[in-house]
Order: sequence, then C-alpha cells, then structure tokens
Amino acid sequence: MQHPYVRLAEIEIDPARLDAYRAALGEEIEASVRVEPGVLALYAVAVKDHPAHIRVFEIYADEDAYRAHLETPHFKKYKAATRDMVTQLKLIDAVPIKLGAKAT
Amino acid sequence: MQHPYVRLAEIEIDPARLDAYRAALGEEIEASVRVEPGVLALYAVAVKDHPAHIRVFEIYADEDAYRAHLETPHFKKYKAATRDMVTQLKLIDAVPIKLGAKAT
Repeated sequence: MQHPYVRLAEIEIDPARLDAYRAALGEEIEASVRVEPGVLALYAVAVKDHPAHIRVFEIYADEDAYRAHLETPHFKKYKAATRDMVTQLKLIDAVPIKLGAKAT
Repeated sequence: MQHPYVRLAEIEIDPARLDAYRAALGEEIEASVRVEPGVLALYAVAVKDHPAHIRVFEIYADEDAYRAHLETPHFKKYKAATRDMVTQLKLIDAVPIKLGAKAT
C-alpha cells in the first residue's frame, strides 16, 4: 500500500434518523469492500458522546478507484437514501504520511 | 475485529519543524505496529494543501492495548521529541460503526 488515495468524511446526521443512517452506511461499506477491488478500507465511527457526528476514513487503491466507487449502484443507493438524513458533509482530501497496519 | 478501540488525533505542527515531525511520527508508527500486538493500525495523513494539519486514525485491539501503547519506550520517545513541534493537539474518542477492510 505505497500510494493509496485517502479521504476523510465528516458527516452530521439528523439525530431522529440516526438508526436508519447507520444501517445505510453499514450496508454501503459492506458492499463496497466486498465488490470493489479498489476500495481497500472504509472505517466509519461516531464521535464518542456525539453519536450523530460521523467520521469516515477512506482508503482507495488510487484516485481512479475512488471515482469508480462514486458510480457504483450501492454508493448511489446510499447517497439517495441518506440525502435527507445528512445535515452537514465535509469531505477532506488527504495525503498519506504513514499507513501502518498489522498484516492479517 | 469486532470491538476494537478507535481514536482520532488532530495535530497541528509548527511548519518550520514539519520534516522532523513527520520523521518522528513515521518511526513511532512503524515501531508500534511491529512491536505491539494490540496496535492494529495507525494511519497518519496530512490534510491536502495543509501539510501541517495531521490526522491520525488509530485502531487498537481494546482500551488496554491503547493504555499499554502510551507506556512504550517508542511512544514516550516520540512524545518527548515532538513536544515542541506540536502547536495543537485534539484527541477524539470514537465508537466504531463499521470498520470495513479488504483481507490482505
């Protein structure tokens, strides 16, 4: 994993829709990692004590893999299903310094 | 990886010390992942176009593994070496929603 393409998402969700949002996000991540060769990792967390503040750390093989991801049916389904649940969305382009992980 | 312990760090660095900081961080991550069984991943990136804004996505096996990490010689060395380089540090406790990654 020498030069992957990394992005961060900071997402705020309507608290009343949080359960539905989490389900849609989990489903989208599961499908992306399973189906797309260029999706290396999608790590979604909530900020502790702020369950409606979601952060996603996204690792793609390269920028083309990210662009392809945006065109997949499962991503488009997630975007359409969650459009009204998301109250704020910040996407951050990142440059890897060191991506250290255990071999599994 | 059912219930890992996830933390996020947002770190701002004195731009004049950035090369030294990046070297120290890279060395600390390499040692932590290699030596500590409970350090599953440490992903350090810079925000694009803001190289002094560092984000680290940290995955530990559990909270004890994180506490043990803080007591290691390589972490203490990093903290001491970088104390004067770090101008701001925000540590965020996180709760996993879905941690999806390719098997490697």
